[in-house]
Order: sequence, then C-alpha cells, then structure tokens
Amino acid sequence: MSGLAITTADVTAAYERIANGVHRTPVMTSRLLDEIAERHLFFKCENLQRGGSFKIRGATNKLLQLSDDERRRGVVAYSSGNHAQGVALAARGLGVSAVIVMAADAPSAKVDATRGYGADILMYDRCTDDREAIAAEIVARDGRVLVPPYDDPAIIAGQGTATLELLQDVPGLDAVVAPVGGGGLLAGAAVIAASQDRPVPAFGAEPETADDTARSLEIGERVEIGPPETIADGARVQMPGELTFPIVRELAAGVVRVPEATIVRAMTLVMTRMKLVVEPTGVLAAAAALEGLLPTDVQRVGIILSGGNIDLETLGQLVG
Amino acid sequence: MSGLAITTADVTAAYERIANGVHRTPVMTSRLLDEIAERHLFFKCENLQRGGSFKIRGATNKLLQLSDDERRRGVVAYSSGNHAQGVALAARGLGVSAVIVMAADAPSAKVDATRGYGADILMYDRCTDDREAIAAEIVARDGRVLVPPYDDPAIIAGQGTATLELLQDVPGLDAVVAPVGGGGLLAGAAVIAASQDRPVPAFGAEPETADDTARSLEIGERVEIGPPETIADGARVQMPGELTFPIVRELAAGVVRVPEATIVRAMTLVMTRMKLVVEPTGVLAAAAALEGLLPTDVQRVGIILSGGNIDLETLGQLVG
Repeated sequence: MSGLAITTADVTAAYERIANGVHRTPVMTSRLLDEIAERHLFFKCENLQRGGSFKIRGATNKLLQLSDDERRRGVVAYSSGNHAQGVALAARGLGVSAVIVMAADAPSAKVDATRGYGADILMYDRCTDDREAIAAEIVARDGRVLVPPYDDPAIIAGQGTATLELLQDVPGLDAVVAPVGGGGLLAGAAVIAASQDRPVPAFGAEPETADDTARSLEIGERVEIGPPETIADGARVQMPGELTFPIVRELAAGVVRVPEATIVRAMTLVMTRMKLVVEPTGVLAAAAALEGLLPTDVQRVGIILSGGNIDLETLGQLVG
Repeated sequence: MSGLAITTADVTAAYERIANGVHRTPVMTSRLLDEIAERHLFFKCENLQRGGSFKIRGATNKLLQLSDDERRRGVVAYSSGNHAQGVALAARGLGVSAVIVMAADAPSAKVDATRGYGADILMYDRCTDDREAIAAEIVARDGRVLVPPYDDPAIIAGQGTATLELLQDVPGLDAVVAPVGGGGLLAGAAVIAASQDRPVPAFGAEPETADDTARSLEIGERVEIGPPETIADGARVQMPGELTFPIVRELAAGVVRVPEATIVRAMTLVMTRMKLVVEPTGVLAAAAALEGLLPTDVQRVGIILSGGNIDLETLGQLVG
C-alpha cells in the first residue's frame, strides 16, 4: 500500500480514537431480504449513527488530531448534506466551534439539524458563489481548519472504522459493499478489508447516472463528469478524490453502477421490511446486493447502510 | 391477582416458551428525543420484531400450547392488521395451517404480507358479513382453533414478554408505556411490571378519539364506544377485552389519551431522528412521553414501539 494516503494502522488507530464519540452501530439482518437477494446480507446500520450517517466518524477522527491551538480557532466545512451534520456534531462533542458553508436553498430540515447541533451556518448562493473559495477565505482569515468531506487521510481512516466494526461483528464475509460519492467510505473500507487474514473484497456502489468512479476505474485515472442527476444526493460528485481514488483503484474489488429505479426499490424494501429509514445514497449498496449486481459467488455480504437523513416530504415523493 | 386471566408465572413461562420463535428486539435511545421529552426514554423496538409487530409473541405462545391434534387441524384468526401477520408467521414457523379472515378492502400490502407468510386468506365483505361469525363457522366446521387478537390468556401472557425483556434490559425504570387497542399488550405489561421487586407503573396510551379503555376505567366497567376515527388503526377497538380489562383496571397505572396531531408529530420525530419506521398505533406510547402526558416524576420511561407495518403511500400522506 505504499504511496496511498492511509494504512490499515490508521484505521485501527481511528477506531480506538473515536470510540467514545460515535455509536457502535448494530448489524441487522432480514430473512425476507436474504430471500430476495439469494444471499446472506448483513446490514451495518450507519443510518442509526449519531447525526444520521457515518460522517461523524471521519469528522471526529479529524478533530481529535487537531492541536490545542487549532481547536481553539475552530473548524469550517462546506456541505449541504451529511458531512455538515457529522462535522457539527463532532465539533460540539469536543467543544470546538464549527462554521458550515451551506447553499441558501438547502433543505431547511438539514439546515435546522446542523444548526441544532450548534454549528454556525454561512449561506451561499449556489449560482454565484464558490463554496470552496468561501471556506478557503475563512481558513485564511480566521485560521479555522478545513474539514474536507473525503479527501483527507484522517477522514478516510475514520470512515474505514464502520467497515472495521462490521468485519469484527460478522466473521467470514465474502464481500463488503459501500456507497461511493467522493470515495472516502469505500477507500476506508477497502484498506481495512484488504488487510484481513483472509482479505475481503470491497465493492463500491455508485448511481448509474453519477458513475465518475466507475468510469475512472475503467481508464485507470480520475475523470470528471457533468453535474449528475440522481436521487442519491450524497453521490452527486463529479470526480473521485485525489487521495481516495488511488486507494479505490489499488484495493477495491470494483464499483457497480446502480440504476435509479433500483435505488427506490431498495429503499422501499428496507423501509417496509426492515423498518429502517434510509436515504437514497444510504441504500446504494443494498440495491447492488438486492438487484443481482454483485458476483454470484459472493454469498455473505456486508452492506453499509450509510445514512438515513431524508426529510419526509422527499420520502413521500420518492416511495409514497 | 386472584381472578385475573393470567399471573406473572404465565408471562415468565411464555418468555421461555417462545424464545426460539421471536426476536429479542433491541432497546434504542435518542438524546434528541430525551431533550424534547425532558425524560430518559428507552424504546423497545417491536417494530423490528418478526412480522413487524409484537403480535407474533402472543400467537406463538398460543400455538405452542396446542395439542398435536389441534395443531394438525390448524388455526383461524380474523384480523386486517398486525395480528394477521403475527398468526401467519407463528403458524408457518410451527408447520401449522392458518386461515386468516380479512376484509376484502384491506390494504393489499397487508394481504400480500400475510399470504407471503403462508396463510390462506378468506375475504369477507365489511358491510354485509360478520368476521367473528365466519371464524366461528370455520372453527365449528373444520375444527380449527381460534387465535383471538387479545382476549385469551395465552395471547396476553405472550404479549407481556415484550415488557419482560424491556425490564430485564433497562433496570430502574420509573414506568413503562404501551399502546392500547384491545388491551392485550398493556395487560401483559401490567402483570409483569407489577411483579418486579420494585413494582413499575404500567401506563396505556390510547387515541383520544378511541378512548374506550380510558372511559371504562373512569366508570370502573367496560363501556362500548362508537366506531372510532383515528389514524391509529390498531387501536380502533370499541370496547376493552373481557379478560384484558380486569387486569388493566387492577394493575395498570392508568391510560392516557393521545390527540391525533401528537401521533403524527411523534411518528415524524421517531422516523427522522431515530430512523425507525413506525406505524401510528406503534407510536402512541412515544407520543404520550414526548407530549408531556405522563406524570412529571416519571423520569426513566420504557416505551413500547409496538409495530412498524405501514405502507409507504399511507406514510407519505400522513407525514409527507
């Protein structure tokens, strides 16, 4: 793994470091979904994680490695999604000030939740402003530390702890599957899964319409796609990360493309049969397993249900 | 407890008897909901139970006490709700034939789920037929055993096991709260809660518009109300049970009336914050705790989330 942004030891260290700040989420199973998938599925319920997604893992790991001086200056992140809530919650837990740069038209539920976790919200206009530039300005002006959504060794290692726990709780998995946006969750998963005594293949699951990582893997280098249209808002990324992609390329078993209709079907199954609220991005890996998108010899599959932050209006429109 | 339909020993025996057939459901907590309720809430997640509600507990306890001959002849139940699925699933697990009498206009999702569990469905016309008479005819003609929805000692004792597990898992509760339809769940809860070394008050939570049990408690005997209008379809019962009511009257701490609007608010909170799918009836006890309907000295509260069987169309209409 030389030259990659993190090692197995980084994930293991993150696991120890963040244990007090995050939930060890349960692994759930469903006979009915096993029958549909014709496999044994083990769902790592990061939708039940603090803040409603895995994002608090990476954020906590990042914040715990700041110097006292950096903590005093606080952090900044740009996100209209789960990363916002993960950073806000991690910061509050550690008594660190957080500014989150969010689009002015972000769903009020997400803005309210992030503010509810104690972060200051800085609104920007999606049409005229550049949120990365705004964050960079805050870093330069106030000395706040940027907490990137995925392209950071501490973030990648933190996200890997979800898979580490899953591998601890369910021995003998044939594969693990994680959704892919910027690739932090999958990269962390791939590192820890590859390091097992019997290495476990780690697959990514990406919306068919937002297949920047799948395409990049096909040609062996990062490609950028146009703004993707997918209900999986957490996977609307146009290019894999600079740090995450080399890890995915070297250590992941592959990335499967998930059609939009299968995302809705998987959400419906997980909600009606497992009684778990999941968001579209959160169910990508489940969709891959339920719809026969994985190799047939993969019988015992660990599935990261990565998040459950969806407002009920949207939910009603998608599956009602 | 002399003269009551069941004793503590019946619940304890049921617990041992049914352990292989039912899930020991998890107890979940939420800091945010604790803040809203200004109490510590411990949610017993029977929405994650097999069949999506606590109903399999009583059904399994009943079926396991049938003679070989009775098991060969099979069972019959009338229900358009969770009891149908509980009986169907319990019967399949024990290799017993089950006929479920369901209204012809029951939601197709519930009919399909019940059939999917292997039961035969007998449709009746809600306007012209009497489902209890149909079931009685099947009992007389085919020798099948009736599995009543609540007014049966084996059913009451079985439902009590949910509270038994909750009391085992969370020591030091100040109260437990269960939804009330026919009263089986609350009666079972009251029996086991009253028998603790430090007896735990058991409260019922009933829709304000379907308050047959609250009214009956006020006058000390069972009264019948008109057909209630409430979104909590599992609590649309017009009179408390003949066996359940004396237990509730003698052993329960009271029954609180839950306004319809608070049911929807509680569903929204449980779904968006705990990421759990719950049905309106399933969230009655949570609504009571979240909306200040319990005595203020009740600080550590066990809440039975009794079920999560709701089709997503209905869900979208209620909370979307």
